Amino acid sequence: MNIKINDNFNNIRESYLFSYINKRVNEYKKNHPNAKIIRLGIGDVTLPLPKLIVDALVKASNEMGVKDTFRGYPPEYGYDFIKEAVVKYYKNINVSLDLDSVFISDGAKSDLGNIVDILGDNDIYIPNPVYPVYVDSNLMSGRKIHYLNGNEANNFLPLPSGLDNNPKVIYLCSPNNPTGATYNYDELKSWVDYAYKTGSLIIFDSAYEAFITDDSPRSIYKIEHAKEVAIEVSSLSKMAGFTGVRCGYTIVPLELTSCDKSVNKLWKRRQATKFNGVSYPVQRAAEAALSDKGIKECMDNINYYMENARMLSEFFDEKGIFYTGGKSSPYIWFKCPNGMNSWDFFDYLLQNANVVGTPGAGFGTFGEGYFRITSFNTHEKTKEAINRLRKLL
Amino acid sequence: MNIKINDNFNNIRESYLFSYINKRVNEYKKNHPNAKIIRLGIGDVTLPLPKLIVDALVKASNEMGVKDTFRGYPPEYGYDFIKEAVVKYYKNINVSLDLDSVFISDGAKSDLGNIVDILGDNDIYIPNPVYPVYVDSNLMSGRKIHYLNGNEANNFLPLPSGLDNNPKVIYLCSPNNPTGATYNYDELKSWVDYAYKTGSLIIFDSAYEAFITDDSPRSIYKIEHAKEVAIEVSSLSKMAGFTGVRCGYTIVPLELTSCDKSVNKLWKRRQATKFNGVSYPVQRAAEAALSDKGIKECMDNINYYMENARMLSEFFDEKGIFYTGGKSSPYIWFKCPNGMNSWDFFDYLLQNANVVGTPGAGFGTFGEGYFRITSFNTHEKTKEAINRLRKLL
Repeated sequence: MNIKINDNFNNIRESYLFSYINKRVNEYKKNHPNAKIIRLGIGDVTLPLPKLIVDALVKASNEMGVKDTFRGYPPEYGYDFIKEAVVKYYKNINVSLDLDSVFISDGAKSDLGNIVDILGDNDIYIPNPVYPVYVDSNLMSGRKIHYLNGNEANNFLPLPSGLDNNPKVIYLCSPNNPTGATYNYDELKSWVDYAYKTGSLIIFDSAYEAFITDDSPRSIYKIEHAKEVAIEVSSLSKMAGFTGVRCGYTIVPLELTSCDKSVNKLWKRRQATKFNGVSYPVQRAAEAALSDKGIKECMDNINYYMENARMLSEFFDEKGIFYTGGKSSPYIWFKCPNGMNSWDFFDYLLQNANVVGTPGAGFGTFGEGYFRITSFNTHEKTKEAINRLRKLL
Repeated sequence: MNIKINDNFNNIRESYLFSYINKRVNEYKKNHPNAKIIRLGIGDVTLPLPKLIVDALVKASNEMGVKDTFRGYPPEYGYDFIKEAVVKYYKNINVSLDLDSVFISDGAKSDLGNIVDILGDNDIYIPNPVYPVYVDSNLMSGRKIHYLNGNEANNFLPLPSGLDNNPKVIYLCSPNNPTGATYNYDELKSWVDYAYKTGSLIIFDSAYEAFITDDSPRSIYKIEHAKEVAIEVSSLSKMAGFTGVRCGYTIVPLELTSCDKSVNKLWKRRQATKFNGVSYPVQRAAEAALSDKGIKECMDNINYYMENARMLSEFFDEKGIFYTGGKSSPYIWFKCPNGMNSWDFFDYLLQNANVVGTPGAGFGTFGEGYFRITSFNTHEKTKEAINRLRKLL
């Protein structure tokens, strides 16, 4: 007899998508040490942090070395100063939030993964393709997943039409990772209305909100009744280049009515038990990023990436290849040439152009035949990648 | 119809112990604004970080502002430099670890809380009294808990004698939080032998190892066969004063045989899915703390706290009051006077001495009638607290 493991782990791939891709690229590099690889794969920022963010990190670090300013355990849900900064950030887009609805964390991935802890056995609806964490975390907890299929017909933006009226947990991601497709107001409203009508709960991932360039909602709370049906998870990773700094936030409104119990209280209890708050210097850095000046400097970096997205979009427009994203998103999601499947195209691109992207199939079955590349690189390397792509596509 | 929540949350108190105590103290302060409260409650460090740790934090923060040294997503399991520093830290106590067995995290609490994710429905054995996270996280995931009762007879160090031979998941904490009691070699060996014989898994919390002053094992891996049966969770919070910096580590040996599947691989998969690594500057700070010079400076701080523990122990010795800890632990766990229960004594102490401690009952039913105070304060305030206690006890 032995200790029992969580058998649900048998239902997921042994490797997380990006760990697997990394391994595959490293193998290629080992065999081709001179290859000039351009990485447009993982959605990781590349520009250094704006100076005022570094200054805030340094200042807070120094405070930790002085008796009078040293700080021990942070509040599990974040210091008031950073929660207030988040509330103000939302106020900029005319969304008012209760301070107690804001939970600071070490990143959106943690919160999106851990949110399953507080939910029971519900029907789970997840877009396909989408960021793999929603699927993997639900499979790990033994949930049954239904897929909301994205395709060229719906521009990879599935809508609720056709769904039954039972309450469900619905994951949405807009701007979508990986497709870059972004719900406009009416589309997102149709989801909120559906959730409101059916007593469903939406888990809305807005990690890429800062890339929105049109009037698409940057928060689900732009929609009436959304506070009654939606949790919003977001991050400074993409907005402020915090992938290596680690800070995110989750909004669990006090108004939520999708469950009989206060979801806000449940999440409070979960976080107080299994999390001990975010590093103090990191919280100060996040505060700086969300200040007026910080937002301006962060937007300079985002605009740099968006110029890459523009160049890439232009290339796919020129080629007449189907794609989504590139407008309000750092991602371009395009159709693999000649009906190639995603992983074959991954290898083809790696071997023939030394460009690393992410196979669409890695984001769900409906991603098969598509491919994601990112604009998180320099202008020079993006241009070079486009030149290499031009020879192949 | 509504969304179902995780009903197991109904089985736990709504508030985490320390959140509740904080609330209660704040209420008292509000009604007694002039009270000079001395906090010997939550086990939080108070001394500032040693200079070389701050320097490492600052240096790494500055690197994040420069193009060539900026770092994005950290490896989910930690950079090699910090994993190697942990391996070397263990080498100092003659324990050799595989680099792949080391997982860097944002703190022991997260890992101790999240470890339930990878386990199935096992019999769980948890000391009583003990750090509440083991109980709460297992209750949240619907596990049945059996208690290993601590009492004056076993010096609050329960042993395996009397347990059946079925495989179990066993949580151990040494030096124990809250009792400060520390397993010696033979006692810990009896647990490892028991686990080895029965195919059990030990989750060993060594967060207070740096406080050990005698030859008690600072790691469970000092015991033969421990790598086949034990996961060790530890932290820089107490060793290096990192409660506000946030860095811990968990050792999941490749040799573990308690489960049919590789627990190391399961934990890898869990962390890659639901965690995105520790802030880069924090990892550099941890590296500095675990350097030879860093350890020396951290030990200066620990010795400062231990002088407080010595003063407190001396007082309880003088009074002839039963207590554990104070020798290899920052905690003193003592019997409440006159058969008072823990929460009554909490109020009595707060009101009559303005000293905050932690009621033993908060750590489990067998903590009822006992009380924890900590040495994480200044010499001056500790002396003042002892003076106030002398008038009451």
